[in-house]
Amino acid sequence: MLTISLQPRFSETDALGHINNTVVPVWFETARVPVFEIFNPTQNLTKWNLILAKIEVNYVAQMSYNANVEIRTFVKRIGNSSLTLLQEVWQQDQKVAFGECVLVKFDYGTNQSCAISESEQHSLKKHIK
Amino acid sequence: MLTISLQPRFSETDALGHINNTVVPVWFETARVPVFEIFNPTQNLTKWNLILAKIEVNYVAQMSYNANVEIRTFVKRIGNSSLTLLQEVWQQDQKVAFGECVLVKFDYGTNQSCAISESEQHSLKKHIK
Amino acid sequence: MLTISLQPRFSETDALGHINNTVVPVWFETARVPVFEIFNPTQNLTKWNLILAKIEVNYVAQMSYNANVEIRTFVKRIGNSSLTLLQEVWQQDQKVAFGECVLVKFDYGTNQSCAISESEQHSLKKHIK
Amino acid sequence: MLTISLQPRFSETDALGHINNTVVPVWFETARVPVFEIFNPTQNLTKWNLILAKIEVNYVAQMSYNANVEIRTFVKRIGNSSLTLLQEVWQQDQKVAFGECVLVKFDYGTNQSCAISESEQHSLKKHIK
Repeated sequence: MLTISLQPRFSETDALGHINNTVVPVWFETARVPVFEIFNPTQNLTKWNLILAKIEVNYVAQMSYNANVEIRTFVKRIGNSSLTLLQEVWQQDQKVAFGECVLVKFDYGTNQSCAISESEQHSLKKHIK
Repeated sequence: MLTISLQPRFSETDALGHINNTVVPVWFETARVPVFEIFNPTQNLTKWNLILAKIEVNYVAQMSYNANVEIRTFVKRIGNSSLTLLQEVWQQDQKVAFGECVLVKFDYGTNQSCAISESEQHSLKKHIK
Repeated sequence: MLTISLQPRFSETDALGHINNTVVPVWFETARVPVFEIFNPTQNLTKWNLILAKIEVNYVAQMSYNANVEIRTFVKRIGNSSLTLLQEVWQQDQKVAFGECVLVKFDYGTNQSCAISESEQHSLKKHIK
Repeated sequence: MLTISLQPRFSETDALGHINNTVVPVWFETARVPVFEIFNPTQNLTKWNLILAKIEVNYVAQMSYNANVEIRTFVKRIGNSSLTLLQEVWQQDQKVAFGECVLVKFDYGTNQSCAISESEQHSLKKHIK
């Protein structure tokens, strides 16, 4: 499991007094950084080699402004060129949102997917749920 | 079908030179305003009566900064207290992203779902795909 | 004067029930697109030639979610390599925010400012306040 | 001085390969939380008592995605009902952006400014530059 802690931002609240739903995909992207680093250790933006194919978010409970959230990220599936992550938002000991996403290893020069290497697979497997 | 046209914003691009994936849920929320108005015609924030239960976004092609996008919204399913929408992003005659979302009619006072009225059902049915 | 109309987004509200202050710089950037086009007519991202040096925003009145805003942009000063814009947010016939920004014509290859051409000056002068 | 460390988010980059300018006001708002807490210790959203009157940001150098930033906040002036903060973004030992903002103690019920108390002044003075 990969985990980060985030402080919700005032600008992330909405008029209903809770965190706006559109913030969760932003938090999830930030929590994927350790996965980005498996594929691109220095996170050099000119060597980016992942593309997002799909996200899904389930909203379980309203998220508050004034308590930190923990984002937990698990590897659920490793394919030839794609992988599926499961990500969760926890706040005050409650799972308040969760969802899967599919990332594809991608060559931005040729616009084609490419194979996940054995060494990348090995690193990903450490975070299998 | 409900449709709106949006001009991608420079701040919505990312370092890969395209629109960042986290922007699509924001566009989709904006495109749901006509649905919000079916449930709360004046969009009075103190009478809000919908909550988002789930979103899903499939990214089909990279989205450019310098061409407008059209967001198309269809009603896919009307339940007792929830409804499912299908939403699509079109850019330059191509469907570049799509996904479903589930909205629940919700009483923020009692924190409980409530029934979609016949009149609301009637209005929603006009946008069934 | 350059002018655009925008519909405030639900995700742009905050827990105080109005539009969050951090949204105004985003709206102002979007309203600068016609100025970007003077310097880079196709808005080709690989030929970008402006950099932002300074922004200032004065918040005059609270901005509501459920009424469109108009962003007005004026050219205030044209220098050798920089220009100052004045931008205003109007909502329901009231000026609710305003501020200046300074843009510099910039060569991202050499990381140096460069001179605004006569033809660019000519185009900018049409929007002088 | 108040200080927080933030990890730039991928969604905060833009097509020029750096952090978009509109992100700095968001970071600055987040860095003002300790000031919010002086006025509203529990940060209860229904007891909010500050409003933003003005922001100013000077962009000194381009901000990178792959290095943390430190936000430093100083109290510059304490008035009867308003205060001025100076905020700075530091990245890799360089001050990359800075600016002042003016906050007003505000009664959202009556829509009027109100006096900063002696105890609030006392707390603010600890962070005077």
